[in-house]
Amino acid sequence: MVNITKFLSTFHTLSKIGWDENSGMNRLALSENDIKVRKELIKRLEAIDANIKYDDAGNVIAKIGNKNKTIALGSHLDSVPHGGRFDGAYGVIAGLSILEDLKDEIKNFSLELVDFTNEEGSRWTPSLMGSGLTTGVFSKEFIYSQKDKQGITFEEAIKNSGFLGEEKNRLMYNPPDYYLELHIEQGPVLEREGFNIGIPVGIVSLRVLDIIFKGESNQAGPTPMSYRKDALIALSKIAYRVRDYALKRDEKLRITIGIVDVKPNVYNAIPGEVHFTIDIRSYEDSVLESATAYVTDLIKSTAEEEDLEHSVNVKWTAKRVNFDKEVIGLIEESCKELNLKYKLMWSWAGHDAQYMTKISRVGMIFVPSVNGRSHTKEEFTRDEDLINGLKVLELTVRKIDERL
Amino acid sequence: MVNITKFLSTFHTLSKIGWDENSGMNRLALSENDIKVRKELIKRLEAIDANIKYDDAGNVIAKIGNKNKTIALGSHLDSVPHGGRFDGAYGVIAGLSILEDLKDEIKNFSLELVDFTNEEGSRWTPSLMGSGLTTGVFSKEFIYSQKDKQGITFEEAIKNSGFLGEEKNRLMYNPPDYYLELHIEQGPVLEREGFNIGIPVGIVSLRVLDIIFKGESNQAGPTPMSYRKDALIALSKIAYRVRDYALKRDEKLRITIGIVDVKPNVYNAIPGEVHFTIDIRSYEDSVLESATAYVTDLIKSTAEEEDLEHSVNVKWTAKRVNFDKEVIGLIEESCKELNLKYKLMWSWAGHDAQYMTKISRVGMIFVPSVNGRSHTKEEFTRDEDLINGLKVLELTVRKIDERL
Repeated sequence: MVNITKFLSTFHTLSKIGWDENSGMNRLALSENDIKVRKELIKRLEAIDANIKYDDAGNVIAKIGNKNKTIALGSHLDSVPHGGRFDGAYGVIAGLSILEDLKDEIKNFSLELVDFTNEEGSRWTPSLMGSGLTTGVFSKEFIYSQKDKQGITFEEAIKNSGFLGEEKNRLMYNPPDYYLELHIEQGPVLEREGFNIGIPVGIVSLRVLDIIFKGESNQAGPTPMSYRKDALIALSKIAYRVRDYALKRDEKLRITIGIVDVKPNVYNAIPGEVHFTIDIRSYEDSVLESATAYVTDLIKSTAEEEDLEHSVNVKWTAKRVNFDKEVIGLIEESCKELNLKYKLMWSWAGHDAQYMTKISRVGMIFVPSVNGRSHTKEEFTRDEDLINGLKVLELTVRKIDERL
Repeated sequence: MVNITKFLSTFHTLSKIGWDENSGMNRLALSENDIKVRKELIKRLEAIDANIKYDDAGNVIAKIGNKNKTIALGSHLDSVPHGGRFDGAYGVIAGLSILEDLKDEIKNFSLELVDFTNEEGSRWTPSLMGSGLTTGVFSKEFIYSQKDKQGITFEEAIKNSGFLGEEKNRLMYNPPDYYLELHIEQGPVLEREGFNIGIPVGIVSLRVLDIIFKGESNQAGPTPMSYRKDALIALSKIAYRVRDYALKRDEKLRITIGIVDVKPNVYNAIPGEVHFTIDIRSYEDSVLESATAYVTDLIKSTAEEEDLEHSVNVKWTAKRVNFDKEVIGLIEESCKELNLKYKLMWSWAGHDAQYMTKISRVGMIFVPSVNGRSHTKEEFTRDEDLINGLKVLELTVRKIDERL
């Protein structure tokens, strides 16, 4: 049986590394705090004689047992700047507890724990970097050449971190049969609808557009209204309409304008240029395509109305992935046995589990986030929910061991 | 007679100080470049034996002649970052030419040239700092404690600049009878409507509002559309409506949303907070008040619709000033005699002339700006128009000398 008290104690102890009441969790990938928490993890893995390896992305891969088949558990210990304590870390510490407490009980599988490097993509883009390299999605050249804001390449940082391992240790060359990731929901749905557990059926498709409207930046006073080419007005005319379009298709579609940069951004100057992003997500490709067409047409017609130049570029895309049906079924059974109210749902955010579907049978387990807050110091999940998630993870591992 | 060739030569020579083809004019107040161009000005003033003083704002005040009455001419040599060559400098160099060439011809007045410190307000806010102190609008304590982006106070900079003079040298203690300021229009009206000269009847009223919409910044993916409190949507719903409101009243009203800061400004996060400014200008107080009420009501109702918190604060106000009717009349006469097509108009931007109305009889002369561009390296006025403006200034000085 997994030791709940020890799990909570370990989780809350390690949550202090990089945490500050005022600025939240600061555990950027391969930063001092990230390295510190990784060393604490490794100390605990060494205590149970796990076989610890690193691959060339610096992913920490720790195995216990010599069975032919493997169940991997994991997530990430890095955080966004000013983030929360639960995102990523919960899945890693829960996995550690399973290895510590179930290592002698699981008969047919070795147990493996993975802490993926730079999941957040906050220090180096793209996100899911470690899982992307270890599953063969990204090339080494690509991720090694990425630079952080200080100009430090991923290659430089991984070499100095002490976590650089061999390419042959990548999970793709020795893939686990199963990969389970326990994670906070990072949204408000479970809490608001009264569920204890969310079971993602997969991760939705994503397309991020980069848009520029270009007019003329003249002085606010001396330029009559009718002579203006104000790029902000075009953004204004589309943002609420795009929101309303998505709101009507809320079940299937989410659209967000997240970045807005206005130039020159001076109170007495007309915005000559506005750069912004539109993040479009759906689990139905036809919905994603229709939304992209709607948005693109609206941008074009609005630029014409306002006599502006415009450009639309695709900044990032991710194709939908589906999780393993048998694994989902075992997670459902576990919830029922534990008498937990669960909801089958889509994951609308990316997770390392996404790329792990390339090499393993994958399932995820979500627990409620209070007020849906995440990537902020207000991110919070109650101990009770952390425990529920851990119990579901434990029972699912046992069920895989017994039946698959 | 004013020497046109020498004026153009001096103007284009001094325009090189701080100028770069790529980054435009960089002559922030009391910066190395501003000090360098001031020294060039002083060298030329010394060559004509002007009596040069500085006041406690570092304004350069140079007088020629010992008459009881004085006509002052001036503007400012400082620029915004990446600004143009004409804004401010044109009026100062034109004034210098008048002192150089008319000093023996003007019989009833001394001639005075003023280069006001930090007109732009780009290094220290507020703008019109030098003219504000020398006319008694601002207190010394207020302007001395203002800090630039590097944390340098105005007091520190003025003491180190070599331009700190005595408080008793302020213009308010020895006010000129007349103050004339020649300036580029900084807008497109004169060029588009085919006028050679603009004669401002005054400077419009200004009110700048600081607005914050506050919602919740959650993750773009996991937060369904219907659960969101997106501050950007509120801005979107008001910006184009405010523009349309002003457009219908274009003769009398100009409104600009210039600054927009979105938090956290990340592509996959819902904008939890938007801070923006609304700059409202009119020459009719009732129009300004109605526009402020319209904007404030719209902000309030939109915040309610979108379930956001909001705040509206007045960041800055300036009351309309009227220029001197007799001086305006003499400028009109000068244009007629010189056969120049002129337009009586409002100045929709602030100028040092604004505060000079507190202590003198004031008039301004505008010349066309190509495409209305200003505060950018594209700012341009043709030599022909520079000359027209200089001739109108010269003739107006002569007419004041003869008749007032």
